[in-house]
Amino acid sequence: MIIPEQQLERSLTSQLAPLEGQDVLLRGWLYARRDLGGLQFLVLRDRAGIVQCVGQDLDLPLPESSIEVVGKVVAHPKAPGGFEVQVRELRVLSRAVEVSPLELPKVEWNVNPETLLDYRYVSVRGLKDRAALKVQAVLVEAFRDSLREQGFTEIFTPKLVSAGAEGGANLFEVDYFERKAYLAQSPQLYKQIMVGTFERVFETAPVYRAEEHATSRHLNEYLSLDVELGFIRSEEDVMAVEEGVLRVICRRLEARCREEFAMFGMELPQVPERIPRIPLAEARALIKQKYGYSVGGKDIDPEGERLLCQHFAEEHGSDWVFVTHYPKAARPFYAYYEPDGTTRSFDLLYRGLEVTTGGQRIHEYDMLVRSLEERGMSTVGFEGYLEVFKHGMPPHGGFAIGAERLTAKFLGIHNVRHARAFPRDRHRLTP
Amino acid sequence: MIIPEQQLERSLTSQLAPLEGQDVLLRGWLYARRDLGGLQFLVLRDRAGIVQCVGQDLDLPLPESSIEVVGKVVAHPKAPGGFEVQVRELRVLSRAVEVSPLELPKVEWNVNPETLLDYRYVSVRGLKDRAALKVQAVLVEAFRDSLREQGFTEIFTPKLVSAGAEGGANLFEVDYFERKAYLAQSPQLYKQIMVGTFERVFETAPVYRAEEHATSRHLNEYLSLDVELGFIRSEEDVMAVEEGVLRVICRRLEARCREEFAMFGMELPQVPERIPRIPLAEARALIKQKYGYSVGGKDIDPEGERLLCQHFAEEHGSDWVFVTHYPKAARPFYAYYEPDGTTRSFDLLYRGLEVTTGGQRIHEYDMLVRSLEERGMSTVGFEGYLEVFKHGMPPHGGFAIGAERLTAKFLGIHNVRHARAFPRDRHRLTP
Repeated sequence: MIIPEQQLERSLTSQLAPLEGQDVLLRGWLYARRDLGGLQFLVLRDRAGIVQCVGQDLDLPLPESSIEVVGKVVAHPKAPGGFEVQVRELRVLSRAVEVSPLELPKVEWNVNPETLLDYRYVSVRGLKDRAALKVQAVLVEAFRDSLREQGFTEIFTPKLVSAGAEGGANLFEVDYFERKAYLAQSPQLYKQIMVGTFERVFETAPVYRAEEHATSRHLNEYLSLDVELGFIRSEEDVMAVEEGVLRVICRRLEARCREEFAMFGMELPQVPERIPRIPLAEARALIKQKYGYSVGGKDIDPEGERLLCQHFAEEHGSDWVFVTHYPKAARPFYAYYEPDGTTRSFDLLYRGLEVTTGGQRIHEYDMLVRSLEERGMSTVGFEGYLEVFKHGMPPHGGFAIGAERLTAKFLGIHNVRHARAFPRDRHRLTP
Repeated sequence: MIIPEQQLERSLTSQLAPLEGQDVLLRGWLYARRDLGGLQFLVLRDRAGIVQCVGQDLDLPLPESSIEVVGKVVAHPKAPGGFEVQVRELRVLSRAVEVSPLELPKVEWNVNPETLLDYRYVSVRGLKDRAALKVQAVLVEAFRDSLREQGFTEIFTPKLVSAGAEGGANLFEVDYFERKAYLAQSPQLYKQIMVGTFERVFETAPVYRAEEHATSRHLNEYLSLDVELGFIRSEEDVMAVEEGVLRVICRRLEARCREEFAMFGMELPQVPERIPRIPLAEARALIKQKYGYSVGGKDIDPEGERLLCQHFAEEHGSDWVFVTHYPKAARPFYAYYEPDGTTRSFDLLYRGLEVTTGGQRIHEYDMLVRSLEERGMSTVGFEGYLEVFKHGMPPHGGFAIGAERLTAKFLGIHNVRHARAFPRDRHRLTP
């Protein structure tokens, strides 16, 4: 039975310092235990952290059991945090009936990362896993708050769609009553439509990519932080909004996630006064000239991204760089393009990784149809999307941030799967 | 070309009152236009509202074109809001190339609601549609803020799952590489697992129900506002959290959405000091005794919900009522039950409609397996879910609010489809 709060109010492990000498009631999980010459040491974990407890003749359950402890807070220089709890009563709220498949205090991410994901229902309780997921929650909250302050409204668009926004590849197919539907790869078309309602919109929702390759930077289901705004002059207005958003995110992380960053041995991210910009062609030339590396394809490959970021870190003191002026061929059909064939689009790189894609969109019907035709794309499935451009869509643009990617990069997590609670990839659909 | 902000900063229609006598720059859509004896009256709509403008010899485009207007704000008692803008310059930013399929200022929801959904890409620009979607955005924001203040952490769980949480019916099937996946009906199992990480969690994400019937209260894809918390004593702790959440939502709507409620002719919702509770059996008896209506099934049917709410409105002055103590047969396998066969669960009704389901969950492995067996349900597909209950899950519970349902009910919207930007039902997959 849980002790009613009236008798002794529950304290969190983070609230103990000012309670020295007093009795406290703690609740949480038995994180670790060991016997030492008649004394029993246990570590209790709750949502706020961990605390060492010490007692005698306690009937200790298996680790990960839920427990309730009553005891006195005493200073103890050798204990983590500088104090421990001398246990007077210990009650088991819910007994672990099997030994945990993971000894959480000893988990090392680099030893067997797939095992941690196989036993995700327990590994999410680990301190580092929790820290990563907390950082992500704070990041998403700051994203939304920052946009609301700039006059944006949150939208909720369908993830069940009749066609893909990017042209049909990598779509998951769904049996939708008598027909086929697809899982949305992005809220692109819908956030554009909603510019007509709220002018400035954002969404934080899952998106789906049926990519067969399982790399450390891809997920088949991820959280997309999407923004779209109308009445812009160019993609510069979009980049300015993104700079503001990132600044708020970094400030919030500094205020709320210092311990979590310390746990990962990472410094808190900073956003410079102005994030440097470089056109793609110049970036490719620079990488070739300075590092002797020829970037393949029409875009920048991962090695090129790494080198470009190295340059901007060294020469401009910025972990961030906007790469701009991508050619049409490297962008989707809705990217606004200039007569010279470049688009008003950008990627944002952070420490060697693309974390954002954005730009101005085509807002005129004729240009959009022409763009589809030039690519040999059919308008089938896009009819509804195209319709809206007959009705006065203002110049607009936006961007999308992959939440797990940014979280992983901020924390130095090598595999993006560990920045998601229950990742999905080609081989992983459970737990 | 859009006028650079340096020359004249853009004003919103909501900011004009203090600018009387001054020149302003407005941007938005041409909502309505008419000629009257040489004078041209136009109504400009931006994200904040509408304003009447008047000019002469203007080259007016079709309604819904994006425009930019420079003119002077003058008092005009007959104009809506008490002033109008005398237009000196009008620029078309993006021309509507076809007559809008809907004359937005004249749209009546009750005339042809399906047409409004067919032309959703334009109808979302309507003032009432926008108001409903804004109310929903504010409601969701308040939901999250209220929970964060109570120590909850946001989670992001998979919508692609290997089995349904409710036992297999009404699942959308997805082609997932070499196998089948399903769209999550609820984050139930995942939010329970995450209690082990954060103790108190919430999620605001889409869920899917492949229900074939298309009623005015069902959507096949909707936004579920989910909560789960650990270390509870009973379902009463869960209901207390929900009361707190609803109170914050209602206060926020009062502060931010007065105009929107007025537009729908609805009063702002209120939450009483304590929402009344009634056990299901008593509720059924009361409905029979007071209204002579025999409720069918094991639950309460829609007519029963209506009558029960009528009773509590009349007798207790509450638009809300918790119905408690549902029998096992009316609840899913994970509902915590008592020896007498009732569960520690509840529904929350608001003005005749169920808006929430919640309760305490089974937290012990043996009880959970027994519950599945008693129902003749297989543990296949639930293995991963069951595993976590071997590892000290504390007593816990939670609830879920259907965001569109609550929004619709608050605003008196008859069909829940109109409380979602792009609703999905058996026959509707576009736009």
